[in-house]
Amino acid sequence: MVHVIDIDDSADPRLDDFRDLNSSDRRPDLPDGKGLVIAEGVLVAERLLSSRFAPISLLGVDRRLTEMGSRLDDVDVPFYRATAEVMAEAVGFHLNRGVLAAAHRPPELDLADVLKDARTVVVLEGVNDHENLGSMFRNAAGLGADAVLFGAACADPLYRRAVRVSMGHVLRVPFARVPDWPRGLKILRDNGFQTISLTPNPSAIPLAEAMTGEKVALLLGAEGPGLTEHAMRATDVRARIPMAPGTDSLNVATAAAMAFYERVRLQ
Amino acid sequence: MVHVIDIDDSADPRLDDFRDLNSSDRRPDLPDGKGLVIAEGVLVAERLLSSRFAPISLLGVDRRLTEMGSRLDDVDVPFYRATAEVMAEAVGFHLNRGVLAAAHRPPELDLADVLKDARTVVVLEGVNDHENLGSMFRNAAGLGADAVLFGAACADPLYRRAVRVSMGHVLRVPFARVPDWPRGLKILRDNGFQTISLTPNPSAIPLAEAMTGEKVALLLGAEGPGLTEHAMRATDVRARIPMAPGTDSLNVATAAAMAFYERVRLQ
Repeated sequence: MVHVIDIDDSADPRLDDFRDLNSSDRRPDLPDGKGLVIAEGVLVAERLLSSRFAPISLLGVDRRLTEMGSRLDDVDVPFYRATAEVMAEAVGFHLNRGVLAAAHRPPELDLADVLKDARTVVVLEGVNDHENLGSMFRNAAGLGADAVLFGAACADPLYRRAVRVSMGHVLRVPFARVPDWPRGLKILRDNGFQTISLTPNPSAIPLAEAMTGEKVALLLGAEGPGLTEHAMRATDVRARIPMAPGTDSLNVATAAAMAFYERVRLQ
Repeated sequence: MVHVIDIDDSADPRLDDFRDLNSSDRRPDLPDGKGLVIAEGVLVAERLLSSRFAPISLLGVDRRLTEMGSRLDDVDVPFYRATAEVMAEAVGFHLNRGVLAAAHRPPELDLADVLKDARTVVVLEGVNDHENLGSMFRNAAGLGADAVLFGAACADPLYRRAVRVSMGHVLRVPFARVPDWPRGLKILRDNGFQTISLTPNPSAIPLAEAMTGEKVALLLGAEGPGLTEHAMRATDVRARIPMAPGTDSLNVATAAAMAFYERVRLQ
């Protein structure tokens, strides 16, 4: 059961993990970052509590404490109860979701472990937008993709905004780094994955025809630049989503969703 | 050719169509709204200039005027040239896209006209989030859907944020209202459209099997509540996107993209 502790002073040092969220710790993954993972709102906080991420504490208004009720029974950390005003002063903005949870980052997962029972994975290169990363994890979870892998130059998937946009799925869908990019893609092939580059290039073949493997790894780059030629050369096949002429490429998370959908469309 | 007019006073009444964009005219579609459509940035402004929306004027910095160059040759309205500072004072915030275009709303398109050569349309009910509407139009354009139709309780697709997120495609993809909702869906059936409700309900049939019509109209409701039972009853079939257990429904624009993709996947 959480230990409820009432806090009436926003300067209380026990709230430091939640302080000035908009300005502090924008890169918690870097060596001088705090390394904390922050979940916002009841749904995402509860997903954090049932994940591999070990909670440190929660901060919330009484109404959210009541709402979470018995789902806090097995949680052995402080719940700092405060008014909405005290919370806003500590956090630096009004938070209408009314509850936050903080957790440590667990060690990163090993690529081999993540691949073991996976059938569909996505591999990202240069995706440095937190909102796109969040949507990517949400779509992966919704459409049953097994893991998100990071090649080079991606943003931190555990940044607060990514956690929120993912609806907490970044805490549930396994992710790992591909070492020695893009040569490390060999590890995927050695594990039986067909590697597929997604590109808007009209000379590529339609995704539905390209995706023939029992296990597939779909590579996507950022909207705009797309995948580097370097990365595309390291894959088995180049595939495209059929696009209308004269339009822009799809959002990267939407493009990935098409590929995930292709895997489950008749289930 | 645009008439370039230098403006050095942010209070100049000629800038009134662009004034305080964040606070004014949040509902330009209502009777007391100004009815203006605002395009932000070079790409979207140029899409506006080549659309059915008649421009009133542009406001931008010199660099954007130069960048747009000959694409302004056939445009017979003022281009108010100002510094970034004067623009920011007039608009109410710093606009790093550096150019805005304002246009009047044309009369709404007639449903029958929009349906005439269409093969794939989406019909929305209760989608009141501007960002989702914008993404919907972007996905429709990218994947070749022919029109977006509005049932009941949707937000204004021409609101500034929707225009921006759509990357200007709200100005290009035709849209119209379905009258007498949901009975007006009869007009779609009379025009040969199979009407398909999208629902997360596991008892519905997979989208790929449900979508059998030569012409299809896909109905989607807002994330969370989804379509009303009232609307679903007025359609030919209920279809689902295969979702992983224990996850949330997809974002409404992403769900629509799956359906659009299903129509073009082998093209």
